[in-house]
Amino acid sequence: MAHYSTGDPIYALATPYAPSALAVIRASGDGVISLIQPLFSSDLSGRVSGSAVHGYISDKDGRRIDEIMLLIYSSGHGYTGEEAFEIMCHGSLPVIRSISRALGEAGIREAERGEFTYRAFMHGRMDLTEAEAVEEIVSARTERAGSDALERLTGSIRREAESIKDEILDILASVEVQLDYGEDDVPEEWVFPSERVSRIVRRLGMIAATYSSSRLYSHGATVVLAGRTNAGKSSLYNSLLKENRAIVSSEEGTTRDYIEADAELLGIPVRLFDTAGLRDADGDVEKEGIRRSKSLIDEADLVVYVLDGMEEDRYPDGERTLKVRSKRDMTGLDSGLSFSSVTGEGIDLVVNAIAERLKGDDMPSLEVPRIDSKRQLDAIKETAAALRDAEAALMMGEDVVAMYLQSALSSLSALTGEVTSEDVLERLFSSFCLGK
Amino acid sequence: MAHYSTGDPIYALATPYAPSALAVIRASGDGVISLIQPLFSSDLSGRVSGSAVHGYISDKDGRRIDEIMLLIYSSGHGYTGEEAFEIMCHGSLPVIRSISRALGEAGIREAERGEFTYRAFMHGRMDLTEAEAVEEIVSARTERAGSDALERLTGSIRREAESIKDEILDILASVEVQLDYGEDDVPEEWVFPSERVSRIVRRLGMIAATYSSSRLYSHGATVVLAGRTNAGKSSLYNSLLKENRAIVSSEEGTTRDYIEADAELLGIPVRLFDTAGLRDADGDVEKEGIRRSKSLIDEADLVVYVLDGMEEDRYPDGERTLKVRSKRDMTGLDSGLSFSSVTGEGIDLVVNAIAERLKGDDMPSLEVPRIDSKRQLDAIKETAAALRDAEAALMMGEDVVAMYLQSALSSLSALTGEVTSEDVLERLFSSFCLGK
Repeated sequence: MAHYSTGDPIYALATPYAPSALAVIRASGDGVISLIQPLFSSDLSGRVSGSAVHGYISDKDGRRIDEIMLLIYSSGHGYTGEEAFEIMCHGSLPVIRSISRALGEAGIREAERGEFTYRAFMHGRMDLTEAEAVEEIVSARTERAGSDALERLTGSIRREAESIKDEILDILASVEVQLDYGEDDVPEEWVFPSERVSRIVRRLGMIAATYSSSRLYSHGATVVLAGRTNAGKSSLYNSLLKENRAIVSSEEGTTRDYIEADAELLGIPVRLFDTAGLRDADGDVEKEGIRRSKSLIDEADLVVYVLDGMEEDRYPDGERTLKVRSKRDMTGLDSGLSFSSVTGEGIDLVVNAIAERLKGDDMPSLEVPRIDSKRQLDAIKETAAALRDAEAALMMGEDVVAMYLQSALSSLSALTGEVTSEDVLERLFSSFCLGK
Repeated sequence: MAHYSTGDPIYALATPYAPSALAVIRASGDGVISLIQPLFSSDLSGRVSGSAVHGYISDKDGRRIDEIMLLIYSSGHGYTGEEAFEIMCHGSLPVIRSISRALGEAGIREAERGEFTYRAFMHGRMDLTEAEAVEEIVSARTERAGSDALERLTGSIRREAESIKDEILDILASVEVQLDYGEDDVPEEWVFPSERVSRIVRRLGMIAATYSSSRLYSHGATVVLAGRTNAGKSSLYNSLLKENRAIVSSEEGTTRDYIEADAELLGIPVRLFDTAGLRDADGDVEKEGIRRSKSLIDEADLVVYVLDGMEEDRYPDGERTLKVRSKRDMTGLDSGLSFSSVTGEGIDLVVNAIAERLKGDDMPSLEVPRIDSKRQLDAIKETAAALRDAEAALMMGEDVVAMYLQSALSSLSALTGEVTSEDVLERLFSSFCLGK
């Protein structure tokens, strides 16, 4: 487990370690600019925060390593909120290695995963939901997942949590007024604001309900094409990859029992499998292939059975199945899910049907921020549960109600990271990528 | 073949297309800053060149894509010498795709390979040898190759070419004075400065001689370990990878006939192969493996035969072979190239011997700039040949000498790119990586 700290100088490569035009190495911590100055050919004194300075970086013996742009940030201005700099150097592996070593020798240690964002969080540059959104953006596979994460990065969850917190504090205050008066001298009849609590609980429920759809857009689904040999599976497979942008080009399964590729179907990242035909097999090898196809089918989020033209449908029905008919150009069928890989007719209907089936009946509200983190889901569910407990505890006295309201507030504080244990933080940030 | 131009707005991803903390997308061309302004949340007017501005980038419909730092360069200040900007965004694939599309929709086209450097060259920001050094830095595999390339990037070849050009111009002027006078009225006896020409030719030869050693450090060599089964090849292989930084971890050959890994031996990038044992084989599979080992040996830059302790040496001698003895801890041999993988004794001697053998007898001068480009080598050789021709043509009259000196100057101009055809430039720059 990584042990995070703030203030001491750290650095990390923020771009992939591969040859390319440019690479970025970032550093943060007290006095990092004065630590880099002896290695850098241009004078950094008196530069305003956010300046990009051209010059050469050398090692401690004065040997030039590379021509770079150095971006400097004074304390309070950069990503972490600490004094910081970013080196834009040539994307050369030996240059990256040499600069890393030079920074190490200058007293800047290599950062742990997520340590920059950890510091940004610790210095109040972002709350915990915004910090999580940083990694969610980086690992997003579709534009939809990316833009959802950007909303969280810009505080959609934080603002929601703050507004709910204000409401709960308000309710808690009114409960505490009752407690102060004691049982006998209540000035006027007081009614617990059940309607208001229910409204908050409903809203929390709506936010929680966005989770499965967010996961679908961020983590994607597995779709298996199945059907008889020559039913038109491979043509459909190719059409789905062609009509829709394939993220990774098709690659042959190592077993040669199926091929798979990543595609994006209406914004949903889909791992698409084309299985070996389902048929009676004589040879052992073929049997093995069909066994594997069956196990793929068992584990898929959705199985698309491709019926060969007018073939009789003998495939199982189910929530996780969809049936489509091939060779529409030959059958002339224009009802139902019929498509032709030759003319392209019906392919868009198939794509739509796949996406709809993956999304299920959930129609997450568009009015609430969307979440994509199990940790956030749990905190939101706990908040809602505590609010329901508070309402249910009315008969047990205002003090018990107040306790549950406090518990709801504390779950909400865990959501935003206002109160969180170092353990939770280290576990969370150590799953980040390097340089973040 | 790419067709390059200058001025029209171009963009390219300058970092690898892989998820990471940060990515950089750069753009260059007339008016690019006014093209990005409508997509960017912060006001860019009145910013000084080299400013990093924080803000949000959106698509043409105003949908926010990412939180970014935007670096702006006014005309004459950036890498290309044109108005330019660099976007530092999250290293997220959908973010990179969305920003690319937004830039395209804003009227900025995708750059060709090497087009940024092409523009830097066309706008006089660098000569051709400096432009080539950009790609040499990026593709460098060792620090030695990287720092050699940096010297060229900072003008080591350009300055040398300029000084040689001045010398030749000087000699040419004195020849032309003779031509002006005509044969009869030469004021005093004039002697062709042969010694001076020879000195230039020698210096050009010294530069040309750096080529093979530069190639060795930049492009590396193939070294094959061969010998009987259990002679100690695999232990030596592991020692070489362990003692010296392995660039890529060892990977098993797909054929299982040999394993290979990249290592760096005294600054030389070495692709190291550990072959199947050379022995008589019965099975067909084994025979095939040994056949492949033999073909590896035929193509290697150096074959290191590992003799098993006191084993009789029956291996061929040759320029491309080196023989070492294993199990020094058991044989007690301390003369010759004897090593022990157990105690580590002698390993450094083996490393030294491999490096020396790869370097050969060439001891390139340290006083001249080193080159690593066949194009530069050819231009330098042509310059030297023309100078030798000039000297040899003395008997044929000053006009012929002048012609050869002009030819030497023109080869020198090709070296620095002062005079080069568009064809040569496009071939050269299109071998660059994207974003450079």
